[in-house]
Amino acid sequence: MLTELETLTQEMIPAVETEMRAVLHANGTQPDPFYGMLQYHMGWVDENLQPAQVNGGKRIRPLLCLLSCAATGGDWQQAVPAAAAIEILHNFSLIHYDIEDASPTRRGRKTVWQIWGIEQAINAGDAMFAISHLAIARLMERGVDPAIVVQAMRRFDETCVRLTQGQYADMDFETRDQVSVAEYLEMILGKTAVLISLSTELGARIAGADPETNTHYNQYGLKLGLAFQVIDDILGIWGDESRTGKSAATDIITKKKTLPVLHGLAQSPALQQLYTQADPDDAFVQQAITLLDAADSHEFARQQAVAYSNDAAYHLEAISPSGSAAKALHQLTHMLLSRDF
Amino acid sequence: MLTELETLTQEMIPAVETEMRAVLHANGTQPDPFYGMLQYHMGWVDENLQPAQVNGGKRIRPLLCLLSCAATGGDWQQAVPAAAAIEILHNFSLIHYDIEDASPTRRGRKTVWQIWGIEQAINAGDAMFAISHLAIARLMERGVDPAIVVQAMRRFDETCVRLTQGQYADMDFETRDQVSVAEYLEMILGKTAVLISLSTELGARIAGADPETNTHYNQYGLKLGLAFQVIDDILGIWGDESRTGKSAATDIITKKKTLPVLHGLAQSPALQQLYTQADPDDAFVQQAITLLDAADSHEFARQQAVAYSNDAAYHLEAISPSGSAAKALHQLTHMLLSRDF
Repeated sequence: MLTELETLTQEMIPAVETEMRAVLHANGTQPDPFYGMLQYHMGWVDENLQPAQVNGGKRIRPLLCLLSCAATGGDWQQAVPAAAAIEILHNFSLIHYDIEDASPTRRGRKTVWQIWGIEQAINAGDAMFAISHLAIARLMERGVDPAIVVQAMRRFDETCVRLTQGQYADMDFETRDQVSVAEYLEMILGKTAVLISLSTELGARIAGADPETNTHYNQYGLKLGLAFQVIDDILGIWGDESRTGKSAATDIITKKKTLPVLHGLAQSPALQQLYTQADPDDAFVQQAITLLDAADSHEFARQQAVAYSNDAAYHLEAISPSGSAAKALHQLTHMLLSRDF
Repeated sequence: MLTELETLTQEMIPAVETEMRAVLHANGTQPDPFYGMLQYHMGWVDENLQPAQVNGGKRIRPLLCLLSCAATGGDWQQAVPAAAAIEILHNFSLIHYDIEDASPTRRGRKTVWQIWGIEQAINAGDAMFAISHLAIARLMERGVDPAIVVQAMRRFDETCVRLTQGQYADMDFETRDQVSVAEYLEMILGKTAVLISLSTELGARIAGADPETNTHYNQYGLKLGLAFQVIDDILGIWGDESRTGKSAATDIITKKKTLPVLHGLAQSPALQQLYTQADPDDAFVQQAITLLDAADSHEFARQQAVAYSNDAAYHLEAISPSGSAAKALHQLTHMLLSRDF
């Protein structure tokens, strides 16, 4: 028997896909090259702009948005343009991050800049950003109160600014020797958590929820996003390769400044010394993990993740939503946060 | 005695600057580095983020927006957030174009990417793009009817998409051997004219003008933008260096595909042959101009510019605005289009 989450996912995700295809001009015919680059990134066409059906991402954000709307007693169909807009915005950010991080692949395929060059990829990201705004304006066509639409658009734009601040900080950290745990948490707030927070908040807003409920949904998404990111950080070092899909200790080899590492660097002069080494090798990885374990950095990060998870659960409890969407929201939360960390 | 244009410019531009400074967090204290990059681009601080007062551009678009509002009988103060948003949007596009075109300088200073690197400059442009949306939402605070605000935001976003389409085409043309005159005109429509068109249209919309008037303002701005660009193309080849500020025939040396060149290439096999030469020198420039003159390309472009200018005048006449703002609009139009081409 299907869970509530599985049943609702099967209804909701195709509705979001249809909406995203509409605003990205994906109507089944071969796209012009401008829209073709965007459709390629979404996983709908291959690099020759021929139809493809590949992994376009998990669509977690739209799902959270629509479930939050339904759990608040709203008609989730009305929130579909917001869910689509958030997913398109997320994908805009990925196109630009892939350039900024010089990433050659994403989801097993070449990144947009690898195929069409950096110049066109910058512009393709800008196009995706612009189109995400056209997407959210389509809330008007679903009969959402204009005052709520204006509010939703404003929260959308405030979130866009926060995203760029998070990305600013992330890139800035790469150039710095010292980054504090507090600075790091502020960075992932902007880069990861605010967009998940927007997803849940807009779902509630479009359902016409009261301000207190909107705030709980906002905070639920925010803590969920923070917990998710910290768990990712833990799995990037101590993760089981067969489950995470990336080789264990990837984040050590690349000397990525994630939460456990920043905690370890603050605690352990030996780790600081080690991290001055130019080309990390296997011995480096072994020694780093030993020092991180000695500094209790795994435990520190685990406690942070648990605290954020508890906060998320608290805000979800406070709303005490009912019905199948509420059950699905609990199931999704559990799925995202119960990874083995 | 000051002209109407001079008088109104002295009132309007400071109001737009104040509004732009508010949304870009420029409150007189030293900005944090995130906003600092944006304020640098606007000409408000130097590269050490110390106060500066340098050329930040001519602010033609905000002026057109506010004059169009006042000429339609509206209170131009209400349109200030739209004027600010359009200027910030324009500056977002410049930050990204400078990366895409690998331009080291703008307005006599280093470009953002030259100082902070390509990665941070991409993100700074994204931030500017996001902030332009926060700027236009501030129409709500000026008492503009919410229905007009939603419409204005939608037209703003549609224009953003058209801008990226124009830039797509411009970059695409650089990689192609053949570009038709029609394709070129479509490109400058997106890259230059639609934003000027948005400026005049939003001014009228915010004044609460009827749909026919809005359309005339839209078309007036569109034709003005097209005329302006074609005149720029002419001056890029036959311009008087002492007036244009760039050396004559710059666009020939760089083999830029502007309107006269595309006309010439379509007419003259000899010019096509010449343009296969790898490193243009002075002899190349001389010969190209001779061939362009033989193909009547200067005259062709001049006729296009005159036709667009006449169209712009027709739409301005059709609205027949009155008062000092209307006079200023005529003066500005004359100033932009009466350059010696």
